[in-house]
Amino acid sequence: MAAFDNLYAGRVAQVRDFGYDAVIISGTDPHSSEYPAPRWKQVEWTSGFTGEAGDLVVTQDHAGLWTDTRYFIQANLQLAGTGIELHKTRIPGEVLIPEWLSGHFTNKPVRIAFDGLCQSVGAVKELDDALRKSYGLGGYELIDRPDMLSELWNDRPAVPHSPVEWLDEKSVGESRKEKFAWLRGEMRKAGCGSMFLTSLDEIAWMLNVRGSDIDYNPYVISFLLVTPQNVIWFVRNVSEVPSPEGIITADYGVLEDALEDRRDECGAIYIDPSTLNYHTYKLIRKFFAESEIVFGPSPVILRKAVKNKKELEGFRRAFIEDGVAVENFLYWLETSVQGGARITEWEASEKLTSLRAQIEGYRGNSFENISAYGANAALPHYSTPREGSAEIKPRGLYLVDSGGQYTFGTTDITRTVPMGRCSRLEKEDYTLVLKGMIDLTLAVFPEGTAGCQIDAISRRPLWAARRNFGHGTGHGIGFYLGVHEGPQSIRQNFNPQPMLPGMVSSNEPGLYREGKHGVRHENVVLCREEGKSEFGSFLSFETLTCCHIDTSIVVKKLLNKSEWDWLKAYNRVVYRMLKNRLAPEVARWLKKKCR
Amino acid sequence: MAAFDNLYAGRVAQVRDFGYDAVIISGTDPHSSEYPAPRWKQVEWTSGFTGEAGDLVVTQDHAGLWTDTRYFIQANLQLAGTGIELHKTRIPGEVLIPEWLSGHFTNKPVRIAFDGLCQSVGAVKELDDALRKSYGLGGYELIDRPDMLSELWNDRPAVPHSPVEWLDEKSVGESRKEKFAWLRGEMRKAGCGSMFLTSLDEIAWMLNVRGSDIDYNPYVISFLLVTPQNVIWFVRNVSEVPSPEGIITADYGVLEDALEDRRDECGAIYIDPSTLNYHTYKLIRKFFAESEIVFGPSPVILRKAVKNKKELEGFRRAFIEDGVAVENFLYWLETSVQGGARITEWEASEKLTSLRAQIEGYRGNSFENISAYGANAALPHYSTPREGSAEIKPRGLYLVDSGGQYTFGTTDITRTVPMGRCSRLEKEDYTLVLKGMIDLTLAVFPEGTAGCQIDAISRRPLWAARRNFGHGTGHGIGFYLGVHEGPQSIRQNFNPQPMLPGMVSSNEPGLYREGKHGVRHENVVLCREEGKSEFGSFLSFETLTCCHIDTSIVVKKLLNKSEWDWLKAYNRVVYRMLKNRLAPEVARWLKKKCR
Repeated sequence: MAAFDNLYAGRVAQVRDFGYDAVIISGTDPHSSEYPAPRWKQVEWTSGFTGEAGDLVVTQDHAGLWTDTRYFIQANLQLAGTGIELHKTRIPGEVLIPEWLSGHFTNKPVRIAFDGLCQSVGAVKELDDALRKSYGLGGYELIDRPDMLSELWNDRPAVPHSPVEWLDEKSVGESRKEKFAWLRGEMRKAGCGSMFLTSLDEIAWMLNVRGSDIDYNPYVISFLLVTPQNVIWFVRNVSEVPSPEGIITADYGVLEDALEDRRDECGAIYIDPSTLNYHTYKLIRKFFAESEIVFGPSPVILRKAVKNKKELEGFRRAFIEDGVAVENFLYWLETSVQGGARITEWEASEKLTSLRAQIEGYRGNSFENISAYGANAALPHYSTPREGSAEIKPRGLYLVDSGGQYTFGTTDITRTVPMGRCSRLEKEDYTLVLKGMIDLTLAVFPEGTAGCQIDAISRRPLWAARRNFGHGTGHGIGFYLGVHEGPQSIRQNFNPQPMLPGMVSSNEPGLYREGKHGVRHENVVLCREEGKSEFGSFLSFETLTCCHIDTSIVVKKLLNKSEWDWLKAYNRVVYRMLKNRLAPEVARWLKKKCR
Repeated sequence: MAAFDNLYAGRVAQVRDFGYDAVIISGTDPHSSEYPAPRWKQVEWTSGFTGEAGDLVVTQDHAGLWTDTRYFIQANLQLAGTGIELHKTRIPGEVLIPEWLSGHFTNKPVRIAFDGLCQSVGAVKELDDALRKSYGLGGYELIDRPDMLSELWNDRPAVPHSPVEWLDEKSVGESRKEKFAWLRGEMRKAGCGSMFLTSLDEIAWMLNVRGSDIDYNPYVISFLLVTPQNVIWFVRNVSEVPSPEGIITADYGVLEDALEDRRDECGAIYIDPSTLNYHTYKLIRKFFAESEIVFGPSPVILRKAVKNKKELEGFRRAFIEDGVAVENFLYWLETSVQGGARITEWEASEKLTSLRAQIEGYRGNSFENISAYGANAALPHYSTPREGSAEIKPRGLYLVDSGGQYTFGTTDITRTVPMGRCSRLEKEDYTLVLKGMIDLTLAVFPEGTAGCQIDAISRRPLWAARRNFGHGTGHGIGFYLGVHEGPQSIRQNFNPQPMLPGMVSSNEPGLYREGKHGVRHENVVLCREEGKSEFGSFLSFETLTCCHIDTSIVVKKLLNKSEWDWLKAYNRVVYRMLKNRLAPEVARWLKKKCR
């Protein structure tokens, strides 16, 4: 361990040697991606921290990692010996980077450097506002040094460029032509001729294209310029990328020239400051006056969250295929462990992946499998180690959270499985979390209701027993795209986005007892119209996930009749849908489970 | 009716004759009160509209009343024939006054006049921002004409000045001295020496004083200047107002002189722009530079919402005294109507008031009784007419929403009473609303939870049946102060104020079927600590209201066991608490009701 500690302490020292008062190293890429490609794991390279969210600040007298509740335990372990301090976010009294930097220095001007490729315009504006308030105009300097870590990071990976996959336009329900006609209409409404798209999932959705440049996310690293006449797609290895009619491909590296050449056909340009990187924004500013740039949230985000008929057909198929794989996995796990085999969390995870991989149209997992036994499941974002993972014993609870990317949809499912004898507390927690999941499944709510206004419905049974969980209850899910997508969410935060018919979201309450066990039940639900009455229009959820829920340790008196009825009916439907797709012994086993 | 129509059309014409492009007439008073004294019922004088919320705009070609969902039906009736158009607020797509005015004119400069005494600084700033965006600097003029309607309104009532009542400092739990020491501490934290208080309930709470200048609200119309050394209270008829030690009284009309005299002892001054009127703000600006004024929400609002031990003792007593009055009323009503007496809504209302008036310490009702039978109860804010109100028949539902002001607390209670045979729909609505009220009563939630995050708990049973109601579920209640107070609320709007132990709020879901019936069940609940666990601290509610809930038409299968258990236990407690305070025949009747 000492060698590693020194490694990161040494890298922090190298960053310090740039000579700035502060260097900010962000955990994202030039597209504000949630999961960046290896080239942009700059926080990991510098600090050793592998969490999916975190930013680093190195000053001459301090090094700090900012990350949220999900990663406190992991950060403490990984930062040990590096000299890097953990700054906690998403807790009361949090001090975020802009605020911290505005209070830290006494010299003037304060010189702060960052890789402008990996900072959004919005983030730099926030930083700038905070620094100006504190140090005054001229009291600080923001230095954009694109790819600055490349000077230190000798074997830094290149920008990836995997083969691209054009989706069958019939299978996704909406052609590029239709999508661009719609987007141009939105641009006209915003008083713009053109739009510069930077977010990889939005570009993939607009173009009906997928790639594999990033683990778990089927994106192509690229930018997209939509003008009144043309669609220009900036990709790596442009000569190898065949483009369909109406799409002009250009090199990812020649953005500046292209912007200059295309300036006149663009008119005013629309950009989303929450995803456009600062460095690229400066390029755009070379050719567009401030008055010719309109900032706003990308309209693609909401549009792609509301799935069309074809996408929903695909989703339904995906959840059945996926359900077959998960049922086969659960059968294998139970019979193996109860038969005395020694199975580790890692082996279970690999088995599950191999079962998914047999599905036609499988393109990888939608995120890293969480395969966690016993106390390990108490970490909501447990990362199963390849070496030395825990053995799954024939007692207590095993939690598996996983999903697949298929050309016809994306899945995400969590099952908590009793492996044998369970404690009273395990049974109670299992039941109360399940009760919350069912209550949200059964919820009916008026049109216009946002996720934060119904989140309490899933938490109420836990709250009543003075229990709670620290993550959101539900996130949007893309169609063969990111397993996390906006704009809707079901959580306590005041996100005003109403739930809309056609949105696909997870429903995943949980409960985590450090050192003991963890429970999470996750189904994916489709928001749909429930009907009108004299009191207005109402919405409800349809469950898409098709995989049984173990009832053997449910504490019956904790469920009311309608909850219990739902559970029985759900398992009945799962059995009916899957029985003909399973080997006879698995079907027999599932029949028993679903009784 | 024609004469009245002409009256208001004529008054609008008189306002138009001032010659401005627009005149704004606000429904509030110089203290941003929810219920103004008659002098400030300027909207009513001009338009005939008597709703509790509404603003009027008169231009040369248009007259419009802006009011919210609660008053649409009433406004349509009262505005008929006046030529005044209804502009609906709190609906999707609402266009508020600033936005409407910014889009209405083509001439420049647009000259807009208002009574600056009755517009808050915050409201004028919003208006100014909107107009500047639309017409540009110099393109419009805002003209402050204090008391401008007095020129037209010959018999306009004077500013009221009823006798003041100093509360026993022991009975309210906190002395003026303690309160001002706390407030001065808050001012220091905000970098201010002094504060100018304008909201009447805050002034009454700070001074432990009450009055009767406004119907239903025990306030004294006044301003309060708190400096590091002195407390100066600006009241009407200053010579008749005895003041306790440490309080300097001054005349309501000499604000300007006093501000000049006191300028030096003030230091920087703190003001709440949401309640300070624009005209008075301009006076303050004569003596204070912009940099010497700190804007912010008044800290008194939150402090007074969290009740102390003595206040809670008072509240508990108030709800028992009040419960006795309401039980006597319900007994009288049932036996009278079933005995064949002809009782109108108005007579019932008068009877209820007379029963409350017998309570020692009664100081009036806390709002206008809503006494509504049958279809009248479908108007959530029904105003019972003195003449020609409906007769209460021995069938269907009667709704009574009422409350008292006592020197030891304020009450607010709604009971919906089956008067005899009820329809299936009446029974179902009655039960579902009750189920929602009980579910919220039984809710447990983590510290930090805001009302909007638990509102769905009370609506869920209605939503499940595709029913809903259009008002909030709960509002704060003052201690012998306003029956509506902030900062907390339980409703769909994103109000971030967490519920805190010691807050007293209503719990009042409802259901309204136009032309048929209305149901509302309202208890008042105290937020309290529920205890800690490894998952944090939890809160819950204690019911303060002490008055039985009729179970005769409850549809049993719609309540689950814990809801039904709560209902039985609640009625048992009510009977036990009240039986010795009631006449034998009433106690016997209540015993039966509570079985």
